[in-house]
Amino acid sequence: MAPGKKGILERLNAGEVVIGDGGFVFALEKRGYVKAGPWTPEAAHTHPESVRQLHREFLRAGSNVMQTFTFYASDDKLENRGQALKITGAQVNEAACDLAREVANEGDALVAGGVSQTPSYLSCKSETEVKAIFKKQLDVFMKKNVDFMIAEYFEHVEEAEWAVQVLKASGKPVAANMCIGPEGDMHGVSTGECAVRLVKAGVYIPHPLCFGSLVIVGVNCHFDPMTCPLAFHTPDCNCQGFIDLPEFPFGLEPRILTRWDMHAYAREAYNVGIRYIGGCCGFEPYHIRAVAEELATERGILPAASEKHGMWGAGLEMHTKPWVRARARRDYWEQLKPASGRPLCPSMSTPEGWGVTKGHADLLQHKEATSSQEMKHVVELQKKAKST
Amino acid sequence: MAPGKKGILERLNAGEVVIGDGGFVFALEKRGYVKAGPWTPEAAHTHPESVRQLHREFLRAGSNVMQTFTFYASDDKLENRGQALKITGAQVNEAACDLAREVANEGDALVAGGVSQTPSYLSCKSETEVKAIFKKQLDVFMKKNVDFMIAEYFEHVEEAEWAVQVLKASGKPVAANMCIGPEGDMHGVSTGECAVRLVKAGVYIPHPLCFGSLVIVGVNCHFDPMTCPLAFHTPDCNCQGFIDLPEFPFGLEPRILTRWDMHAYAREAYNVGIRYIGGCCGFEPYHIRAVAEELATERGILPAASEKHGMWGAGLEMHTKPWVRARARRDYWEQLKPASGRPLCPSMSTPEGWGVTKGHADLLQHKEATSSQEMKHVVELQKKAKST
Amino acid sequence: MAPGKKGILERLNAGEVVIGDGGFVFALEKRGYVKAGPWTPEAAHTHPESVRQLHREFLRAGSNVMQTFTFYASDDKLENRGQALKITGAQVNEAACDLAREVANEGDALVAGGVSQTPSYLSCKSETEVKAIFKKQLDVFMKKNVDFMIAEYFEHVEEAEWAVQVLKASGKPVAANMCIGPEGDMHGVSTGECAVRLVKAGVYIPHPLCFGSLVIVGVNCHFDPMTCPLAFHTPDCNCQGFIDLPEFPFGLEPRILTRWDMHAYAREAYNVGIRYIGGCCGFEPYHIRAVAEELATERGILPAASEKHGMWGAGLEMHTKPWVRARARRDYWEQLKPASGRPLCPSMSTPEGWGVTKGHADLLQHKEATSSQEMKHVVELQKKAKST
Amino acid sequence: MAPGKKGILERLNAGEVVIGDGGFVFALEKRGYVKAGPWTPEAAHTHPESVRQLHREFLRAGSNVMQTFTFYASDDKLENRGQALKITGAQVNEAACDLAREVANEGDALVAGGVSQTPSYLSCKSETEVKAIFKKQLDVFMKKNVDFMIAEYFEHVEEAEWAVQVLKASGKPVAANMCIGPEGDMHGVSTGECAVRLVKAGVYIPHPLCFGSLVIVGVNCHFDPMTCPLAFHTPDCNCQGFIDLPEFPFGLEPRILTRWDMHAYAREAYNVGIRYIGGCCGFEPYHIRAVAEELATERGILPAASEKHGMWGAGLEMHTKPWVRARARRDYWEQLKPASGRPLCPSMSTPEGWGVTKGHADLLQHKEATSSQEMKHVVELQKKAKST
Repeated sequence: MAPGKKGILERLNAGEVVIGDGGFVFALEKRGYVKAGPWTPEAAHTHPESVRQLHREFLRAGSNVMQTFTFYASDDKLENRGQALKITGAQVNEAACDLAREVANEGDALVAGGVSQTPSYLSCKSETEVKAIFKKQLDVFMKKNVDFMIAEYFEHVEEAEWAVQVLKASGKPVAANMCIGPEGDMHGVSTGECAVRLVKAGVYIPHPLCFGSLVIVGVNCHFDPMTCPLAFHTPDCNCQGFIDLPEFPFGLEPRILTRWDMHAYAREAYNVGIRYIGGCCGFEPYHIRAVAEELATERGILPAASEKHGMWGAGLEMHTKPWVRARARRDYWEQLKPASGRPLCPSMSTPEGWGVTKGHADLLQHKEATSSQEMKHVVELQKKAKST
Repeated sequence: MAPGKKGILERLNAGEVVIGDGGFVFALEKRGYVKAGPWTPEAAHTHPESVRQLHREFLRAGSNVMQTFTFYASDDKLENRGQALKITGAQVNEAACDLAREVANEGDALVAGGVSQTPSYLSCKSETEVKAIFKKQLDVFMKKNVDFMIAEYFEHVEEAEWAVQVLKASGKPVAANMCIGPEGDMHGVSTGECAVRLVKAGVYIPHPLCFGSLVIVGVNCHFDPMTCPLAFHTPDCNCQGFIDLPEFPFGLEPRILTRWDMHAYAREAYNVGIRYIGGCCGFEPYHIRAVAEELATERGILPAASEKHGMWGAGLEMHTKPWVRARARRDYWEQLKPASGRPLCPSMSTPEGWGVTKGHADLLQHKEATSSQEMKHVVELQKKAKST
Repeated sequence: MAPGKKGILERLNAGEVVIGDGGFVFALEKRGYVKAGPWTPEAAHTHPESVRQLHREFLRAGSNVMQTFTFYASDDKLENRGQALKITGAQVNEAACDLAREVANEGDALVAGGVSQTPSYLSCKSETEVKAIFKKQLDVFMKKNVDFMIAEYFEHVEEAEWAVQVLKASGKPVAANMCIGPEGDMHGVSTGECAVRLVKAGVYIPHPLCFGSLVIVGVNCHFDPMTCPLAFHTPDCNCQGFIDLPEFPFGLEPRILTRWDMHAYAREAYNVGIRYIGGCCGFEPYHIRAVAEELATERGILPAASEKHGMWGAGLEMHTKPWVRARARRDYWEQLKPASGRPLCPSMSTPEGWGVTKGHADLLQHKEATSSQEMKHVVELQKKAKST
Repeated sequence: MAPGKKGILERLNAGEVVIGDGGFVFALEKRGYVKAGPWTPEAAHTHPESVRQLHREFLRAGSNVMQTFTFYASDDKLENRGQALKITGAQVNEAACDLAREVANEGDALVAGGVSQTPSYLSCKSETEVKAIFKKQLDVFMKKNVDFMIAEYFEHVEEAEWAVQVLKASGKPVAANMCIGPEGDMHGVSTGECAVRLVKAGVYIPHPLCFGSLVIVGVNCHFDPMTCPLAFHTPDCNCQGFIDLPEFPFGLEPRILTRWDMHAYAREAYNVGIRYIGGCCGFEPYHIRAVAEELATERGILPAASEKHGMWGAGLEMHTKPWVRARARRDYWEQLKPASGRPLCPSMSTPEGWGVTKGHADLLQHKEATSSQEMKHVVELQKKAKST
């Protein structure tokens, strides 16, 4: 931590509103640096300028936390997905720490080292083996001296507990989140029970970070699309979230939240007492800026990027056309029901509902890309699922 | 031009498919560097790293043309919109040329200097005055030795002709486009007549570049959303295009084209004989990549960014979940009708239809942001328009 | 005509607003007395109580014209569609005249004898043969002394002319309508030319009756769904109208017009000068009542059925729940955008566009129901049509 | 009961599938004989031909039960809603019994006398007073010798129990239904508890009749729009059902179920063991015919009205156009996703959620139509409700 900066616990204990960052894998996929499917973060090593720039945009949008771009950056994942890829997890983790620190130093932000679920767990490896993977990542975070830890995107509370147990040994604050919904984890453990077990495992900040299409640990959010910080409307989702939508991941555009949806999300999160508010998949810098603008009074500060926006679209006062200028007001945007321009499309989808999880043969992870035989098998399974 | 690179005319004459870039103002607005309303490009000067990075992403996605980020970069526009802004047009134009050249040199791309419509014309300044503005921009382009010129985003053919007349004096190739639809320009000149007049004015490449929500000069596109390279579905638009949509510019998310829409657009453009295919507002790097992937066979090359994609989403073969792996195929994405997840929203909007243009008092441009009195006036005009 | 009643021409010449009736075949199909497919009116003979009751409901709703339920009631149609059916055209026409007269006598209504297009024409029979069919129907209408004639639902102006030429020999007023759209008749004769030819053929009332999904002869209607008196929203239709919609005829429910849509239709028709306003397929008695209520001031009378309605839903003032009572006002219903409750359905369809017509082998009519071989042939044709 | 007919209990005990009838108040409202708001059935007395015809259509469509058109036919309701109306409950009940019996005698149908909730209960009258009202109706049913009793459309289980206690004294079978959803009755009694209490009160047939927007007593229906026999899609409804939809009752058209939706409903009801299947608001004769056609094999009989239909639209084989003939098949209609033709409308609504019930001052019923002062009060309440 840069001298003079307050730590994450100090901030939260002081009642500050801490703003997290957005979704790196989705944003960088659209920019050409992350591959949908593997979703691995080797760009931190191969194209650092793209990762640095995205960190800068989130900082400028108001983020107080630069989370290292280390999602899925474990050796077992990189090997499984890597084909000819010769980059090690350590290389990615180190590069990601350096980039996050470099940009954090440019403003009032902390660096959080992130770990996430592993293919080893899904493939039924032992507790010792899985914990060794987290330990390897932690070693880099300690060497690079990140400010705190985030364990995120876990579908099984058991694996999340293992991650937390490893991370807490560092002595640094640990936040933990699961990508589960109101129906609980993939093994049927209820959401409430998950929260209890994570706290027992040693989480310092049981605050409402939530990733994927997931419910907030310890928080009950009622209103769609605000169940969770996902930047897509998902009223049609079931327990496995937006991954089961037929649109995932290449047809989600019509579901993207507007900045005004984000104002509502931020306000609601604040009202239920959440003080660490971040985003996940689909959150672009302008979404985070909207969170910061909504809470500008409470935080006593506007983000730098607001010089290019103005509250509630005030910049439109300088548009060429007078009728566009007339849209520079809060009630216009708050009341707008945006059309999709897609009259041949439905408004909701029928998500797939597989219900297979760790322990199911089809989820054993392997290095090879899917063979045509496997594909056939899956299509048969789908037909079966639909007919029941 | 870098030694050994072929010029734009050589490429087109050789039958090559040239791919343009995407929409800088919209992309940079979401990243926090452009203000919606003024839409001016001062970021080229103040935040060069953001502009450089976006150029790189388009290059990586397959663009053969780095257009200078000089949209609205004339002194009359910057002054009108600038408030405390002390940056001159020359500073912006110079910085933009340097950035475009720097990135063009990293690959097989040319640099195009761009000019666009001016507030002076809308405010009824003389031909001499308007031409002097274009000349000032041209001086920078000549000094920086761009490879060719683009005159774009003109609503009135008269002003476009003036721009072309100035630019052609440079001796460099000039492309020209208007942001008009099938109903012609804002003064009622038919689309065909506009094309004839631009060719007479000296345009070297009457090829189908088209910006805004506009029809392609000389090309008849029949199928929505493919009237024009706008990355938003606009079946409900009338003559002034997407600016008149109530969603413009902060609620357009549900209309964003998917990469698969772009495949269809690129194929159709190619089939009608277009060989210079670019994008405008809303085109992100992954949209340009989709154009390049669709035409990979014809062009004999895949863009660099396809290492992170694979044709028709092939990267999904390495996804964790088998049912997502089953989506790694062309027919899945071609046939998908993406839902919006917005069951409380309509699929189409009722656009405003003002029909005021140059010569109308309400379009005189001024430095001050809209006063509340003006706003009142506009709202009254809107009510009137709706009741007739 | 009952003594003391004014004829149709007298009424129109006096500037009265004459209200027609609604769609018998669609209404009786839902009540169980008409078969979709053949669409023949034998119920006038076999189930007179059902036809009498529907006449009464339209009379009560404000209709001034009881059109005989003789749509497709020609021997060639009945034979073609009749299978074991032993009923003759004369039997149906006579029964229909008696029912229309019986109910017309219960109020201020006239009786109109109706003829429509014939399978003989589609099967390329001669002018003499086709005219003989109309003559046979006319003989019954003369014997039963109807008040005037309506020739309706013609897709080819040539056949409509033949019908008018036969009917005008009766000396009674003749109204004529074609089921065509802005693109003209099925042989490519423009809509304007159709109107001219019908007037020349001897039509006394070139007033805007229009049936099927058709434009009004001599009248230019701009606003969907108001092109024509069809009681279904059809913004997605092409030249052959709602028959080409994939929903026709058993999935049209979500398109049904509300009574408030009818208020708008009636007002617009009145404003463009139409004084004979009726309905076609899908018009139920409450739709006609809405027309009569909208024009109550102009006509100086409310229909009998309004005792069970009240203008703009005033009856809701007596609802049990106070919040439903609050809906008893005009602006509530005028502004309502009714939801479909079908979030998995699109808002528009892709209509088929066959473009085959009289002269095409596939349109030769025959007595037998479609064979499976024919069905195969059609499905192949459809695939071909979609691929071009 | 006509000699030789089996009673309702005999039929059900023999495993027969009994088909009820559809929604009289909604159907007759559209035909011009019932006033939305009061919803009272005086037409049985004033326009018997309209009620007789509707009974006949349901009989023809396959109904085995002619329920007397006596919904809300109690003196307290008629007085409250009646204004100048001088008709007594006894007159309406007697006429309705005669009509139901007349048509039941024309086929294989029974007559069921129906009672429903009263304004007296809502206005907090005593058990004695409320029971006296039911007794008065029962006296007519006994005099007219109906075959069994139905107590339906109750929002409070207490009042339903009172009704059942009165009716069972007759010695005839009594069926009972409540118009409640999964959340229980308006006083918060759970749906299961309601069922238990009704059975204890003496209901002989705890079979799945259900009216309004209500759950079926003792039956768990999972799939929308099949929660209940309402002929409107209501995925957006909350506990008080479709009455709270902004479209109720004059803008529900786009929600109307197609005949194919009814096939699915009938099949599902049958599969969960229901053997008495009827419909409620919005059910037209063709909806009941669809139920009868779906269960034709199980019942060993097709309804008379199927002579005008054919299974799965087989009648289309005789349509003029070959491409419409190609729609005469089951898979076409089963797979169709019908469009609404309403691209400016949403697919779902935001229902009102009042939560006031018996005991709340605003629900005291009175004879006068709503005053403008009351209306103001309600609108204020609505605003309050929305802001919380």
